[in-house]
Amino acid sequence: MSERWPVVAIDIGGTKIAGGVVLPGGGVRLARQVPTEAWAGGESVLARAIALAQELRHAALTTPTAGLATQPAAVGIGAAGGVDPESGRIVFATSALPGWQGIALRDRMASALDLPTFADNDGNVMALGEAAHGAGRGYQHVVGLTVGTGVGGGIVLEGRVFHGAWGGAGRIGHLIVAAEGPRPCYCGGQGCLEAYASAPAMLEDFLATVGHGQAGQELGPDIARMDVRELARLAAAGHEAAAAVIDRGARYLGAGIATLLNLLNPAVVVLGGGVVQIGDVYLDAVRQAAAAHALPTVRETPILPAQLGTAANLVGAAVLAWQGLE
Amino acid sequence: MSERWPVVAIDIGGTKIAGGVVLPGGGVRLARQVPTEAWAGGESVLARAIALAQELRHAALTTPTAGLATQPAAVGIGAAGGVDPESGRIVFATSALPGWQGIALRDRMASALDLPTFADNDGNVMALGEAAHGAGRGYQHVVGLTVGTGVGGGIVLEGRVFHGAWGGAGRIGHLIVAAEGPRPCYCGGQGCLEAYASAPAMLEDFLATVGHGQAGQELGPDIARMDVRELARLAAAGHEAAAAVIDRGARYLGAGIATLLNLLNPAVVVLGGGVVQIGDVYLDAVRQAAAAHALPTVRETPILPAQLGTAANLVGAAVLAWQGLE
Repeated sequence: MSERWPVVAIDIGGTKIAGGVVLPGGGVRLARQVPTEAWAGGESVLARAIALAQELRHAALTTPTAGLATQPAAVGIGAAGGVDPESGRIVFATSALPGWQGIALRDRMASALDLPTFADNDGNVMALGEAAHGAGRGYQHVVGLTVGTGVGGGIVLEGRVFHGAWGGAGRIGHLIVAAEGPRPCYCGGQGCLEAYASAPAMLEDFLATVGHGQAGQELGPDIARMDVRELARLAAAGHEAAAAVIDRGARYLGAGIATLLNLLNPAVVVLGGGVVQIGDVYLDAVRQAAAAHALPTVRETPILPAQLGTAANLVGAAVLAWQGLE
Repeated sequence: MSERWPVVAIDIGGTKIAGGVVLPGGGVRLARQVPTEAWAGGESVLARAIALAQELRHAALTTPTAGLATQPAAVGIGAAGGVDPESGRIVFATSALPGWQGIALRDRMASALDLPTFADNDGNVMALGEAAHGAGRGYQHVVGLTVGTGVGGGIVLEGRVFHGAWGGAGRIGHLIVAAEGPRPCYCGGQGCLEAYASAPAMLEDFLATVGHGQAGQELGPDIARMDVRELARLAAAGHEAAAAVIDRGARYLGAGIATLLNLLNPAVVVLGGGVVQIGDVYLDAVRQAAAAHALPTVRETPILPAQLGTAANLVGAAVLAWQGLE
């Protein structure tokens, strides 16, 4: 991989646009972020992403430290939604970025910065970042997952993002883990992993279990504003319903991972995202469920916590650019 | 692909060992089969497969028709169970072939026939055969499934079997479609596609539904000996429980296919095996369920009936050999 030049990396999510300059070797410098302001529409989001990239290029040129003071060689972008790998255009928008569909993300960035630009889905670049410089470093085939507000991720085969026939591959949140399960997914389907294992799914389960009972009343009005960290604190303090809900989410995630193991036999699975921050209790339950469902040949595949945190997307976007420049 | 020489192809299943000489272009000649006699153990099965291959090589040399009367250039083998892609050894045995584990399938055949030999799992060679010369011809990425006594298949990426990190990839019968479903699978896991969509699963559902009720009594003592064709005949004749059971199996298969689409974005999915013989009612229900669960970008992926029938494994085993000879 020709990691010879710094790359301006941009990560476009539903609430914030993050950016940084990624150095050869995977170090991120000059990290910064701006709000996405998704409500203002796709053109506005694109303009904010371009402005951030221009600012970063300028900062890279004028920051004589840590190997910078260099013209970045390319822009790498990870973005929420479906990015066509051929055209770099947004082929579908998630609910997090309405109005994003149809934006010629790659080409508009390339002409605004006059730099070669490479763009992919944020789940794919997360997996690529962890595979190249994180917990999946050194392995041939890596599956990366992020479990947070949604369940995302990507498939990296022989060091590169696997896109399938027309860029639709790697939508790990939409493994069907409960074919006859009643829970609808925002995608229009039902039974998707995301609808059972994401943070909102766990919180919904918790509210459904205790919300109107005595246990719910003891928690007071804050229950509707809980996040998954508070749920984990309750579980750690001995709250049985909280522990049961976390365990259920972990078991669904483990079942989804077993599908990935039985189907793809990756050398390693890397888990990132806010839910994984719950810690070892959660991770152990995930591993146990995956092993219970997986075939003997793949049962002992390592399931490792991600190492790069939120920087994974920036690093992966840079790796995408380095691979594209080859 | 260097399809220049005939290949002796062998397909080792739990009840029969099939063989044939596959000509460049995919035509099968001199097809024949012998019972596996799996009860006699792995060494006996291997000996029978070797004898069949020797017989076929001799027949190829002495049959001056259709491009034969030629020394076959290699042996290609598809076999039930887990075949290590590096060593050609059986790394795990299915219940259909007990005692099969540990057999050095590829090397034993190669030395017995003094021909280059290539071996893979039967699901993988089925998918490869259909991808190269059947319903998947001309497509870059193909997933092949057989739905019968079990659910098998394989993943073909860019014309080659995808094995994953150590040969465990492509075990499509063990997608987890019902993470909390109660039904155990022979693999030791639960919620596997095979446990819900195979012929025995449908027949078990049917027996559970009508076996002890009035409808079951009307069917008489034959109910326990039914096969999926009879189930389909009943459904076609208006038997509601039979139709419901077939529909349920189709919906599970469709959910499993949606997972394959969302994860791998193949250009086409090819469906073979006895259950698919039920016909359009079944196939349409599978397609409908897959579309209901799949993401919009991959929802219209063609799901096609296999074209090669039981010859798919022989053709795929030959393609494996041609690829190996390159």
